[in-house]
Amino acid sequence: MEFKTATIDHLPAIVRLLADDELGATRERFEEPLPLQYIEAFEKIMQQVGNSIIVALDNEEVIGCLQLTLIPGIARLGMTRAQIEGVRVVRSYRSKGVGEALFRYAMDVAKANGCGMIQLTTDKQRKEAHRFYERLGFVASHDGMKLLLSD
Amino acid sequence: MEFKTATIDHLPAIVRLLADDELGATRERFEEPLPLQYIEAFEKIMQQVGNSIIVALDNEEVIGCLQLTLIPGIARLGMTRAQIEGVRVVRSYRSKGVGEALFRYAMDVAKANGCGMIQLTTDKQRKEAHRFYERLGFVASHDGMKLLLSD
Repeated sequence: MEFKTATIDHLPAIVRLLADDELGATRERFEEPLPLQYIEAFEKIMQQVGNSIIVALDNEEVIGCLQLTLIPGIARLGMTRAQIEGVRVVRSYRSKGVGEALFRYAMDVAKANGCGMIQLTTDKQRKEAHRFYERLGFVASHDGMKLLLSD
Repeated sequence: MEFKTATIDHLPAIVRLLADDELGATRERFEEPLPLQYIEAFEKIMQQVGNSIIVALDNEEVIGCLQLTLIPGIARLGMTRAQIEGVRVVRSYRSKGVGEALFRYAMDVAKANGCGMIQLTTDKQRKEAHRFYERLGFVASHDGMKLLLSD
């Protein structure tokens, strides 16, 4: 297993992985060719310093992914925080430590870039994910609040 | 009252505001000259596309601030999310609608930049903040989990 910053070649596998999820199934569209919105979004990620998708690979195949964004801020003496979004592991590879290894890798990248904190929000429906993050040392000290913006 | 993207000239007032807070008091160092870490952090924010501090001004004086970061992502058909951190209003200006107006401004910026969601985490100790965000339409659907990274 190895970890890499995703390139556009990994994008179809990332979208398939995001779609293969109880919440993601209703939100994503995995089609060939890939909907243009995903390609444009990937380009925007690459253009933003500190923003990346990290993939876990087994024999060049994407078996897991997460988004890591390094966000400089003023609070806490000018601390940069690392933020994680969209954590997924391919079904057949679950419960084998892939998620944990992927997280350890992301945490190392965050530390190497001087981040003082790593943060994420997890849907309150995802009870197992919550326990997984607690095992890694995350503390649910905050409420994660969202508001959908309409056009 | 007007709203602007902060410049380096607003930074001392922003740090003073972050320090004048029950949680911030233990985390910040408002001194003159300003600790270098804040100046470096501000420069990093300005260098990251989509990251900014927005200030509310009354007669050129900073009376409120928040950090707005636009984060492109792959999930939800390549949705960009807007994230808010570090929301503060000067004590003597609280309960006068400054926070709400500042939020409405940030939401308009997020919409104008094509964001499909606006999100934040709020410390579970901040009960009043929680109610404020609910009044604005935010839903506490997620847990906000944090892990401090040591050197």
